Amino acid sequence: MAPFPPRLLAGYRNFMAGRYAAESARYRSLAREGQSPETMVIACCDSRAAPETIFDAGPGELFVLRNVANLVPPYAPDDRHHGTSAALEFAVQSLKVKNIVVMGHGRCGGIHAALNPSAEPLSPGDFIGQWMGLVAPAAEVVASNTLMTPAERQTALERISIRYQIQNLRTFPCVRILEEKGRLALHGAWFDISEGELWVMDAETGDFVRPSLGETL
Amino acid sequence: MAPFPPRLLAGYRNFMAGRYAAESARYRSLAREGQSPETMVIACCDSRAAPETIFDAGPGELFVLRNVANLVPPYAPDDRHHGTSAALEFAVQSLKVKNIVVMGHGRCGGIHAALNPSAEPLSPGDFIGQWMGLVAPAAEVVASNTLMTPAERQTALERISIRYQIQNLRTFPCVRILEEKGRLALHGAWFDISEGELWVMDAETGDFVRPSLGETL
Amino acid sequence: MAPFPPRLLAGYRNFMAGRYAAESARYRSLAREGQSPETMVIACCDSRAAPETIFDAGPGELFVLRNVANLVPPYAPDDRHHGTSAALEFAVQSLKVKNIVVMGHGRCGGIHAALNPSAEPLSPGDFIGQWMGLVAPAAEVVASNTLMTPAERQTALERISIRYQIQNLRTFPCVRILEEKGRLALHGAWFDISEGELWVMDAETGDFVRPSLGETL
Amino acid sequence: MAPFPPRLLAGYRNFMAGRYAAESARYRSLAREGQSPETMVIACCDSRAAPETIFDAGPGELFVLRNVANLVPPYAPDDRHHGTSAALEFAVQSLKVKNIVVMGHGRCGGIHAALNPSAEPLSPGDFIGQWMGLVAPAAEVVASNTLMTPAERQTALERISIRYQIQNLRTFPCVRILEEKGRLALHGAWFDISEGELWVMDAETGDFVRPSLGETL
Repeated sequence: MAPFPPRLLAGYRNFMAGRYAAESARYRSLAREGQSPETMVIACCDSRAAPETIFDAGPGELFVLRNVANLVPPYAPDDRHHGTSAALEFAVQSLKVKNIVVMGHGRCGGIHAALNPSAEPLSPGDFIGQWMGLVAPAAEVVASNTLMTPAERQTALERISIRYQIQNLRTFPCVRILEEKGRLALHGAWFDISEGELWVMDAETGDFVRPSLGETL
Repeated sequence: MAPFPPRLLAGYRNFMAGRYAAESARYRSLAREGQSPETMVIACCDSRAAPETIFDAGPGELFVLRNVANLVPPYAPDDRHHGTSAALEFAVQSLKVKNIVVMGHGRCGGIHAALNPSAEPLSPGDFIGQWMGLVAPAAEVVASNTLMTPAERQTALERISIRYQIQNLRTFPCVRILEEKGRLALHGAWFDISEGELWVMDAETGDFVRPSLGETL
Repeated sequence: MAPFPPRLLAGYRNFMAGRYAAESARYRSLAREGQSPETMVIACCDSRAAPETIFDAGPGELFVLRNVANLVPPYAPDDRHHGTSAALEFAVQSLKVKNIVVMGHGRCGGIHAALNPSAEPLSPGDFIGQWMGLVAPAAEVVASNTLMTPAERQTALERISIRYQIQNLRTFPCVRILEEKGRLALHGAWFDISEGELWVMDAETGDFVRPSLGETL
Repeated sequence: MAPFPPRLLAGYRNFMAGRYAAESARYRSLAREGQSPETMVIACCDSRAAPETIFDAGPGELFVLRNVANLVPPYAPDDRHHGTSAALEFAVQSLKVKNIVVMGHGRCGGIHAALNPSAEPLSPGDFIGQWMGLVAPAAEVVASNTLMTPAERQTALERISIRYQIQNLRTFPCVRILEEKGRLALHGAWFDISEGELWVMDAETGDFVRPSLGETL
């Protein structure tokens, strides 16, 4: 049998000697009293866009759902296994998070697949094709604009999709009600990977803008 | 409108001044040449168990799916939106990862819900109830053993579930075939949160054991 | 009669006491020997996007054409007064510049007018309408994508237009021939005004990217 | 492909570290609220006569049209692309500038071409020849006076041309009407390049005189 990946064990040793050593009291407290993160992040599986890294978040801070292209299937109460809906329900109803951030990123493979559907699916089940079908209508609109470069179309759909997912969040009654009561805020963010730039969505206009970092001190 | 959470912006500033400043060349290279992570981690949304933190992983290293209780619904090719299957297909067929690690953890809220089903669902859709239904048969078996303490039952189901998810991974033809060819390895891991202990699954026996860290140097 | 604007005279006095005092030898030399700028910039009239300011350029460095939305009408040898073509001919054939930079910018009023044609022209001649008609086909394509926000459509057309103008530059035989001989290079740039960000066009892909400033030393 | 001119990138870096750093609040405000310059300057493309430099103007102050020899083709409402008329219409009708300054300068290449028409045009389209045809009648008159030195003829036509362009401005109904109402003032200026001298036109007499700078404090 294959041994547990040595790179992961080496990394874990670093964690124990570094972060855990420094924060063991916090880990123990979080274990004893349970987690109470204020923020849920819905992010992509991409190896270059880990929320804890980008937001320099410590243990207990972020409740993180990650799927391909950070999508939120709309509310559909039936007898299926809805992983995203379950995470959302748990975060909102049980943990009572105050913020939900949908964080997309540049060069997203899922968005790329939506813009460039291949005749040949990755596997017979075509799970990526089905999953990215959630943004297919927007992908068609964006793909039709051949005056934009492929990279510009990619960024455009990445951002349109974030706005879509935020709309989909509002199809969940609990989200909509708590947002109306001012107890839950929905945010969009987009991380460019290459330059490390973070762009946040203006809730009024839907535009993505560079946040003023000076004001955060 | 609610401003973007200041704590996240402050964390992002730390990231830019710290990790990004130190690894900007790597981020740019990853943006230019694409990601090629060797390992996919299927982990829980829990705010205390971020894979990048526990494995001290840098950008580009881990392709991370996170859902409640790190579950893998079994292969079901139909016309539904299967988020977990899509991530798996992308990791295996497109990124060609060499390892998949299912990482559970102590004090998991999803596992706790499976062991203690409430009469009252968290929301009318009962998404957590539906989602954790994926381990309901095992949960019933464990819950029936009243000789174990609640904490023991919790840990037991957390570990049983990891073994279940690894079996579910093998229902995907692409996973099974590549594992048989020796090009993909499946691993289990369990993180205890409180003491920072990592336990890895022995592939032969299914037992969880403390890895020998000295060997990783 | 109105006196010459006092603000301009005050600014001129600053110039004499500052830049001119420091560079009088250079001004005299440039007067005596003529200008020989290496770069022509085709920029917008906008008061927030002066090329000399953005590129911190001294006397003699930039030959600057400015019109609304930095457009280049395509080659049309006839008996009309073509201001843009005249400037281009002078820069390329007489001054023999080595670079032509088409520099657009964010929040461009001309591009905004192209995307939002009003039923009521600004004046009976509708000169803005006629002039921006040079990008009307692209404006229609971009305007039709209502999934993008108004600001995103604006940026998209600003960048598409820069690529168009560079293509129009190549309709001039002298430009095309010199570019083929490697004696003239065409560049695109986009300045965002708000954050002071400069984006330059990748000649291969047409994408606008942040230049690496460290490499310019 | 040719890289973006390094000199421009170095200049841009200076801008970011200098002027932008000092005026970022102003840039952001101008981006948010739009430009509202009080003055339009019609200047020459010449690399030695940038209006922002000569008037030490900051962002948002000057709306600047630049073409060869700072010409204003007279009002001609037809279906052509009139770049100068478009800029004028935008400045007057949309931005509602209060001043228009036509600024010529010494040693102007366009004026020199008008005075010394070559048998051989710069390119087959002879765009400079066509463009400078706008001052051909005056050029013929000046050229015929062989008692003046070539340099005196050059300066004479530079100044005559400024007066012509101001007359041409008045062929635009909107300019004439607003000037009559006292809401728009037209000015002439001439910059000598060599000594840095600015001369402004006396609106009564048409003479160019050195302004009294003491009065501007």
